[in-house]
Amino acid sequence: MTIAAHTAAQHIVVDAESLRAAIIDALVAHGATPAKAEEQAAMLVEGDLRDHHSHGVRRLPVLTARLDEGLIDSDSEPLFEWVTETILRVDGQQGFGPSVGFAAIDQIIERAERTGLALASISNSNHLGMLAPYVEKMVAAGQIAFAFTTSEALVHPWGGSSAMVGTNPIGIGVPTDGEPLILDMSTASVSMGKILDHAAKGEPIPLGWAVDSSGKPTDDAQAAVDGGAISPFGGPKGYALGIALEAIVAMLTQSSLGREVAGTLDAKELANKGDVFIAISTKRLGLTSFLPRLQSYFDDVRASAAGGASVSVPGDRARATVEQRRRDGIPLLRANWDAALELKEVAP
Amino acid sequence: MTIAAHTAAQHIVVDAESLRAAIIDALVAHGATPAKAEEQAAMLVEGDLRDHHSHGVRRLPVLTARLDEGLIDSDSEPLFEWVTETILRVDGQQGFGPSVGFAAIDQIIERAERTGLALASISNSNHLGMLAPYVEKMVAAGQIAFAFTTSEALVHPWGGSSAMVGTNPIGIGVPTDGEPLILDMSTASVSMGKILDHAAKGEPIPLGWAVDSSGKPTDDAQAAVDGGAISPFGGPKGYALGIALEAIVAMLTQSSLGREVAGTLDAKELANKGDVFIAISTKRLGLTSFLPRLQSYFDDVRASAAGGASVSVPGDRARATVEQRRRDGIPLLRANWDAALELKEVAP
Repeated sequence: MTIAAHTAAQHIVVDAESLRAAIIDALVAHGATPAKAEEQAAMLVEGDLRDHHSHGVRRLPVLTARLDEGLIDSDSEPLFEWVTETILRVDGQQGFGPSVGFAAIDQIIERAERTGLALASISNSNHLGMLAPYVEKMVAAGQIAFAFTTSEALVHPWGGSSAMVGTNPIGIGVPTDGEPLILDMSTASVSMGKILDHAAKGEPIPLGWAVDSSGKPTDDAQAAVDGGAISPFGGPKGYALGIALEAIVAMLTQSSLGREVAGTLDAKELANKGDVFIAISTKRLGLTSFLPRLQSYFDDVRASAAGGASVSVPGDRARATVEQRRRDGIPLLRANWDAALELKEVAP
Repeated sequence: MTIAAHTAAQHIVVDAESLRAAIIDALVAHGATPAKAEEQAAMLVEGDLRDHHSHGVRRLPVLTARLDEGLIDSDSEPLFEWVTETILRVDGQQGFGPSVGFAAIDQIIERAERTGLALASISNSNHLGMLAPYVEKMVAAGQIAFAFTTSEALVHPWGGSSAMVGTNPIGIGVPTDGEPLILDMSTASVSMGKILDHAAKGEPIPLGWAVDSSGKPTDDAQAAVDGGAISPFGGPKGYALGIALEAIVAMLTQSSLGREVAGTLDAKELANKGDVFIAISTKRLGLTSFLPRLQSYFDDVRASAAGGASVSVPGDRARATVEQRRRDGIPLLRANWDAALELKEVAP
């Protein structure tokens, strides 16, 4: 285990393997089976490796509490039903989100190689974590990948003040014959975690991140938390995209909508959101000769930076961050790391 | 024919049927077959009915010029090939975009009722026009609908100054047991038409619409036109979405990318962009019992407006605008209407 002191006293640098081991220990101490704990731990580490700490070890206390409450059943195996030749319905049986998600992806990757395209719709499954690792797995198989998932209502409709729409992230992966395009983004302007951080420190937030309870854009983080809501990214267009995905994912998975969605941030409710993955095989569709053209286009885009600026293709920055953190360790809030270490001492 | 004088002298109000008839006459005068001219005319009228004049009769002179140059072949019929049971490859044979698009949609609507999902990838076809009417047709068949199309590079990558990405619009349709959700939006912050309008009038543009040739956000419409580029909507996230769709549509249709895309705004090049439609049958997948829940969610969202504001579900405003314009007529720039009338007098 390598743990170095960070410049700021409330931070600590932990290597990825130590973080993974600590999370596994904590999950197993709270009743998770070792194999499923490994799958879940790997995804939390992915969040911290990619600098998306809201999807990292910070989520561990909620997961162990959910195990304690019987809201996550790590013993379960998902139920698969091919509704048609290309559409897989998955009942997650309240398993860990990553275990269910990757099991579903394995199914559609294999199916798409035969049918060209396959779609998985997942219900009764826990939080997926980052979407990038799922689309990366499909892309590694030479497939175009989409990932959609709903979440608790934290975002206001355009013109509204109440949180009625999830942060509904989008994952897209496109293979090339070099580095792929990997998009993983929320349809909210910012995470609730960041607004809570600003509120805790008494710092203002940029206008555009959130509205207050009257629906006015606010720079007061506490006003955003107290009866306000996060704004969608990109104004009315981001709202339109977010609610469209909420509707489609909920319908395809027959899961909950809007304020009814629960079970990814709390330790009280069964997870009732939905996840949708789509895999399209470039090999089966005879498209592999296009991969070098795509690579060349992306390289032209990267080279088009205006003086002093830099232009990246989605996924470039996350790839560099992951590489650097795998080498140099992951800066974590000491409180989150301490919590992980304590959780493995506490039996359920 | 009902034509009323508008308040502003340079405007005229034309009823939809008169507009449709004038466009058909012009297209036929330039060699289009009457049946295909009707399909194309209906789509230009849809643009003006929805207040998206950049997709309305304003495009007629380019279409007649393309007919004159042999870049649109209205006599052709698209070639269909089912690559797999669910994936249709369409060679548009340089036909009118709407003729090819609706023919492809008819195929996938029927197929999706059997297979649950079907996808059409279209190449060698002209400009589609608005995406809403295509997704509306799938939605009217009880299907979830996606529409994607690439376009000439007019948008800069985030951090760049050169136009490298299309305005790549997104169409999404979701049925309910009442009014559906219909999303039709560009991934650019604004249309080039609007920037050109401001430049012509010497008016400034809002910061965020475009950058100048050095990559700096500019309020100078002429600077945006002269070597600058339109900004993506929603900053880096809108850029990420736009380039991901550019890559996916180009790969699936094996069509052109970035600056190579041509043939929708000019009368010199064959159209080499791609279109992708996806239809998912709610009936075949046993999801129709979910439609009332979706309707109820959308009604809750509509009712959630903050004091004084109004909240709509994507499609609501366009529906109201179309209804009003069908009743009261369509306000057009007199120059565009005059051009339509002149074009039918000019034989090719």
